[in-house]
Amino acid sequence: MGGDGAEALGGGLGVSSAASILAVGSELLGTTRLDTNSLYLTGELEALGMRLVRKGCVGDGWEDLLAELTAALDRAPVLVVTGGLGPTADDRTKEAVAFLFGRKLVRDEAILARLRERFRRRGREMPAVNEKQADVIEGAVVLPNPRGTAPGYLVESGGKTVVLLPGIPAEMRGMWEEEVRPRLSRHAPPGGIRRRVLKVAGMPESAVEEIATPVYRAWPGHDFTILAASGEIQLHFSARGEPEEAARTLDRIEADFRKALGNEIFGRDDETLESVVGDLLRSRGQTLSLAESCTGGHVAARLTDVPGSSDYFLGGAVTYANSAKIGLVSVDPATLERHGAVSEEVAREMAAGARRTFGATIGVGITGIAGPGGGTPEKPVGTVHLALDAADGTRLHRRFLLPGDRALIRRWSSSAALSLVRFHLLGRPDAVGSPPR
Amino acid sequence: MGGDGAEALGGGLGVSSAASILAVGSELLGTTRLDTNSLYLTGELEALGMRLVRKGCVGDGWEDLLAELTAALDRAPVLVVTGGLGPTADDRTKEAVAFLFGRKLVRDEAILARLRERFRRRGREMPAVNEKQADVIEGAVVLPNPRGTAPGYLVESGGKTVVLLPGIPAEMRGMWEEEVRPRLSRHAPPGGIRRRVLKVAGMPESAVEEIATPVYRAWPGHDFTILAASGEIQLHFSARGEPEEAARTLDRIEADFRKALGNEIFGRDDETLESVVGDLLRSRGQTLSLAESCTGGHVAARLTDVPGSSDYFLGGAVTYANSAKIGLVSVDPATLERHGAVSEEVAREMAAGARRTFGATIGVGITGIAGPGGGTPEKPVGTVHLALDAADGTRLHRRFLLPGDRALIRRWSSSAALSLVRFHLLGRPDAVGSPPR
Repeated sequence: MGGDGAEALGGGLGVSSAASILAVGSELLGTTRLDTNSLYLTGELEALGMRLVRKGCVGDGWEDLLAELTAALDRAPVLVVTGGLGPTADDRTKEAVAFLFGRKLVRDEAILARLRERFRRRGREMPAVNEKQADVIEGAVVLPNPRGTAPGYLVESGGKTVVLLPGIPAEMRGMWEEEVRPRLSRHAPPGGIRRRVLKVAGMPESAVEEIATPVYRAWPGHDFTILAASGEIQLHFSARGEPEEAARTLDRIEADFRKALGNEIFGRDDETLESVVGDLLRSRGQTLSLAESCTGGHVAARLTDVPGSSDYFLGGAVTYANSAKIGLVSVDPATLERHGAVSEEVAREMAAGARRTFGATIGVGITGIAGPGGGTPEKPVGTVHLALDAADGTRLHRRFLLPGDRALIRRWSSSAALSLVRFHLLGRPDAVGSPPR
Repeated sequence: MGGDGAEALGGGLGVSSAASILAVGSELLGTTRLDTNSLYLTGELEALGMRLVRKGCVGDGWEDLLAELTAALDRAPVLVVTGGLGPTADDRTKEAVAFLFGRKLVRDEAILARLRERFRRRGREMPAVNEKQADVIEGAVVLPNPRGTAPGYLVESGGKTVVLLPGIPAEMRGMWEEEVRPRLSRHAPPGGIRRRVLKVAGMPESAVEEIATPVYRAWPGHDFTILAASGEIQLHFSARGEPEEAARTLDRIEADFRKALGNEIFGRDDETLESVVGDLLRSRGQTLSLAESCTGGHVAARLTDVPGSSDYFLGGAVTYANSAKIGLVSVDPATLERHGAVSEEVAREMAAGARRTFGATIGVGITGIAGPGGGTPEKPVGTVHLALDAADGTRLHRRFLLPGDRALIRRWSSSAALSLVRFHLLGRPDAVGSPPR
């Protein structure tokens, strides 16, 4: 039983094989748990040249399980299933796959002996329920699980390839690395998918898309996606092929995007706006300090999320009360009186005060109305004034009218502040301005 | 167009209706993003007496989209779809649903006018791509989206109910609360599942579980779950039945948990540590100010996430550099010299200085080593000193040695600071102390 049937593999695999992932377990249909295994498996499938076309979660019920397995195999020749391999009556993944492929379950005495031995080593008698974990799918490759009791399976039938893995992340991952990846990679087409992400801040999604569209039209087949997430736009794209060849292609696509979008692209892949601003500050020997009102510490929190930020970030004042604006960053009470706390004049004084108070080369001031209360007809919720004051004499100011709720206004304001610092450091202080849609 | 067809609802709804969720978007099939909307929607469906039987993610491709919608509707009469309602060529959810149900898309001039007005208010011309967001599914209930440009839809046909929502969480949630929940609840069967969450901060998960176990053993069948997430422990439990009856049962279970855990429970359901601390400060006429070093503004950002926090939060100093500790919150240079920036003495001086500088009744100081660099054998990464200084003469100090990475240490430190303020306000300043496991 369980002989190495992997040699027969390849029916379901080919250039650009479509694949899908199914996570089995009623706990994944509740209000608290997400199937995180699929993120790991997606990367692994892509590296093998496969393309994920769907993923899903289903409970332990027999009918549901059969319907989901059938739907998944209808859509893609390769299916990776996690979960439902345990010893309890709820665990029926193996039975469902055997049923669908018309295979029997056969007791494997060697596996049974290993299971008994595993329990014995832990000083326990094996419970009778665990016996069923020694019943294997006829004709399948049985994948040992040194980290747990449930073996996995690799089943091939009628051009379909199904991999069954335990749901526990460490067991799933170990089994994939040791048993599945080596078998599938023997038959994988040369050259999996490599991905790259370019990031833009301070432009509306539609404007980025308008500029980016000619580029991705020029590179068909590279899975272009544009994503807007809390104050930034991400451009995702991919290339297929041998690692170096794919990297060269990604470099050429990136160069085209950079030609179109220029400095609007602030970073790539894992870079964040705060890490990029930090690197610029460090490389130019500059230091930064803040006076935040409506963002309430969010800009400081983002800057200090970056390890080593104490090299260039001296500190910030969260000046929520007017008295704090006056006391900590020397805003003139007369300015507050005349223009109100949310005004260009106060933002400029906050920036200058932040710079002087902390002795930084660049100071930034942010004041605005994040809502939901506090808006007026003249200064509605979403009104934000942003100012920068630098030791080289640069004085900048931007006014925004931002849409969205309190969280979005705060997030977008903090990104705009970081963008303004970035463009100042790049010598392009004119470049920040467009609010999101 | 878009007349209130909701009166016809109920075909797909019934006692314990099966429901499914589909998230649309190629970005959800990558290696980085999970569909978190489904967790919220699952709870909402359960509250309406529905049972989630499957959920899934699919890309933007037309064939994939049609296949998934068909598979979902085969399995359950109610389907909630998120994403793919935007203005770009990739956004085809609306088209696919209309196609499946044999409906036309019809230009709605009122929606078009509102979209144009939305852009005009922001001083921009509406891009031509956005026009398609005014094409609505014939005969569907059109759900307005005051937070964005994409309207949602509620479509009924042949005993099936399909709800289309935007993928952006704030838009999705607002639309569900304001448009979908009221319509579906009119037709919901009596006796959905109600859930409650109680929250604990500053105790290790194992200690919470040990105390909570006798309670949940006493209430079998109430779906008890214990969850640890970034510095807090959540106790989830459920009751089934008529709303009032279920609420009474939840009250009784909650009372048992409160008897066991007392003041360790800081809040329930949507309450956050920062909102609870804010309510306590407001009701007691107290004000708070901060001096943050290792948390870098995270505590201020959390406090000011709460609308109306300017009532009690005066401000904070992010004193990353020693010069800022001296200049902004009057830490004695000799104390820094003698004890180092991460010390009980400096934390106490930061707290006192924060209180005086901002004129608050309570000041909090936090200094520590969040890593990954900066640790020493005497003061390893994870060492955090927390102090509180109140106008009533209270002086508190706690020292923690926290496990985990930079993000976890910062999150846990900020929760500990808020907990310390809470227990001080409750007259139980002895109660904060246990680090996580």
